[in-house]
Amino acid sequence: MPTTPAFPPPKMGEPYLLTPGPLTTAYEVKQAMLKDWGSWDDDFRAMTRDLRARLLALLGPGGAGYDCVPLQGSGSYCVEAMLGSFVPKDGKVLVLSNGAYGLRAAATLDQIGRGRVLLDKGDYLPPRGDEVARILADDPAITHVLAIHCETSSGILNPVEEISEATYAAGRKLLIDSMSAFGAIPLEPDRIRYEAMVSSANKCIEGVPGFGFVIAKTAEIEAAKGNSHSLALDVHGQWATMEKTGQWRFTPPTHVVAAFIEALKMHQAEGGVAARGARYERNRDVMVAGMRALGFETLLDNRWLSPIIVTFFCPADPAFVFARFYDLMKQKGFIIYPGKLTVVDSFRVGCIGRMDEHVMARVVEAARASLAEMGVASAAPPAAALEERKKLAA
Amino acid sequence: MPTTPAFPPPKMGEPYLLTPGPLTTAYEVKQAMLKDWGSWDDDFRAMTRDLRARLLALLGPGGAGYDCVPLQGSGSYCVEAMLGSFVPKDGKVLVLSNGAYGLRAAATLDQIGRGRVLLDKGDYLPPRGDEVARILADDPAITHVLAIHCETSSGILNPVEEISEATYAAGRKLLIDSMSAFGAIPLEPDRIRYEAMVSSANKCIEGVPGFGFVIAKTAEIEAAKGNSHSLALDVHGQWATMEKTGQWRFTPPTHVVAAFIEALKMHQAEGGVAARGARYERNRDVMVAGMRALGFETLLDNRWLSPIIVTFFCPADPAFVFARFYDLMKQKGFIIYPGKLTVVDSFRVGCIGRMDEHVMARVVEAARASLAEMGVASAAPPAAALEERKKLAA
Ligand SMILES: Cc1ncc(COP(=O)(O)O)c(C=O)c1O
Ligand SMILES: Cc1ncc(COP(=O)(O)O)c(C=O)c1O
Repeated sequence: MPTTPAFPPPKMGEPYLLTPGPLTTAYEVKQAMLKDWGSWDDDFRAMTRDLRARLLALLGPGGAGYDCVPLQGSGSYCVEAMLGSFVPKDGKVLVLSNGAYGLRAAATLDQIGRGRVLLDKGDYLPPRGDEVARILADDPAITHVLAIHCETSSGILNPVEEISEATYAAGRKLLIDSMSAFGAIPLEPDRIRYEAMVSSANKCIEGVPGFGFVIAKTAEIEAAKGNSHSLALDVHGQWATMEKTGQWRFTPPTHVVAAFIEALKMHQAEGGVAARGARYERNRDVMVAGMRALGFETLLDNRWLSPIIVTFFCPADPAFVFARFYDLMKQKGFIIYPGKLTVVDSFRVGCIGRMDEHVMARVVEAARASLAEMGVASAAPPAAALEERKKLAA
Repeated sequence: MPTTPAFPPPKMGEPYLLTPGPLTTAYEVKQAMLKDWGSWDDDFRAMTRDLRARLLALLGPGGAGYDCVPLQGSGSYCVEAMLGSFVPKDGKVLVLSNGAYGLRAAATLDQIGRGRVLLDKGDYLPPRGDEVARILADDPAITHVLAIHCETSSGILNPVEEISEATYAAGRKLLIDSMSAFGAIPLEPDRIRYEAMVSSANKCIEGVPGFGFVIAKTAEIEAAKGNSHSLALDVHGQWATMEKTGQWRFTPPTHVVAAFIEALKMHQAEGGVAARGARYERNRDVMVAGMRALGFETLLDNRWLSPIIVTFFCPADPAFVFARFYDLMKQKGFIIYPGKLTVVDSFRVGCIGRMDEHVMARVVEAARASLAEMGVASAAPPAAALEERKKLAA
């Protein structure tokens, strides 16, 4: 009799999503959505309480002075809510950017009318602690630093520890976009200081998309009263209503919340942040080793590779056409992601979601077969890509 | 052999939600969420196209110059997005308020820094065309009028036709919050002029909560470029990305979108807006007649009763305690809603969602039994409530 595998394939013939959210979720997570809840009812209030407590527990003992505020909308909404709520109207943010999400945070600050300076490291170079220290020393008007934990557009894991140290050594406050990292990579206030962070339901906790959450020092939330540029994206407003009534201020995505609670239970059953991170690391290691064996090259060297998503250079061989590769991979049951580099062509493969290294081995096999079908003789990148990569070493 | 009823009861022993969203949805709608979609993939782009086209079709032939922009978040997010995107920074809005949602719109304008004046009609008195005409004549600075289609906090169906006439007669622009009405009550530009309206997934289309949508004149959307106070709530930004790439700007609530498309198909199969509205009217008529027969009194007289939700006065009998009544109704399988009147105690019963008049007859029976269990001899309201109601007639 066959035993049930730990990670059964998605049902209904659907492909695996090797995309960093939405991602492949457990069937049990989706099944939790087969019921309607009244958002005013005690049953749903208990669910909201449970969700907030479980998320806070992921911070470890250092989370005592923090609170969790779930917020309707996508992750970008939570980034905007964090910036608009915690950065005073006359504040100024140093945005550490090395990709699309850093640039979006800067654009958000511009649109909501908060001051900012940008450290733009291009497509993937990491912002370092000493650079941050220098900029902060030179510009006393800066009140906050915004760091992207895992910059999903390249897959780099940014050095948030040294960024935090430089920030607080200069007496400023750190805000973190941990969208694609939280739940798989520790972010414990005991080990790294920060005022607030955001993430969303459909990343490393493996829920379905529909809301995100801000985790912040309770004192910061209290101090944010009246500061937000928006009614809907006011972290203090949402928090105050939840504290008083146990309800969300506006209609919550009840089904998505139910799915998320199931996902949080599965996260705990797997062994929490450490175990989730370890699985993603195995996913990455098996996948990267296999792809390298096929001749693909990663944008980043191992030191900077996150266990979240990996950028590969497109092969130089003219027989390689990304749109065709995408379709061939999809036919074989795997949805991959286009790259976001501005300088050279690339694509991305996610390591997060309800899958393990056995699935990742099949991803590599599918890539091999797809290259063969396209008649690509070598997966080696163009010389320009390798030149580009030397910048990182320098 | 028993035939399948048209409206099977909710599964898993769950109660009916007599709440105006989240509401009881069809099982098929929830089942559509049992799959994961990549938001970048063609399959999902096709779903987004379908969703937008189906919503626009509900406007009838007069919808030709309009476009539909779905937006992550709850309904209030869409109201804020509409106001922040279409009201210029130096604009001024006349907010027609007769309940909680009108007041929230005014609070939104204050928080996002747009000028406004408030016509505050209290808990439920309808704003009339002649009043609007007078205010507009007296204040040439007013650029826009905001009307609430069905003010869900009392259940009144506001006279948007005469409001629209007064608005355009004075050369101003109308914005409509049709959150709880759209899909069951016609809002066809051929019959009523407006620039933009908003609604959400979890109201009369009977989807699950997680996003809303703005329907606006395409020319207004184009003109809104750069106007929004927010990046996430920028209608033009979302629209421009959708037009160019077929994708949502930020991660969409994929599962909720899939459920909504199923709900739109069922809406069409039922016979569209007219049939949906007719079913809700039957729901209301059976429920109101039954409740009146028990001695309950509605806040509004028939002329103003929407087929969406109905407010009843709490009985004067001291044996009636709302929290107890709520629990007894819930035990019998029905979740009702507390009232929102500031002057007298009340409760509300919704008529929308996946249920028909046979279910509503059972609601009445459950109310009768609950009164009996509480030992309430008469459901008649206090004299103060009836006094209050005379205001409406005056
Ligand atoms: C680091 C980071 N920030 C922000 C976002 C934006 O989240 P959303 O697409 O849910 O708005 C993402 C999405 O992948 C992300 O990875
Ligand atoms: C008329 C009206 N406007 C706005 C809203 C707010 O919608 P949401 O609760 O989804 O934010 C509602 C919700 O019921 C409503 O009925």
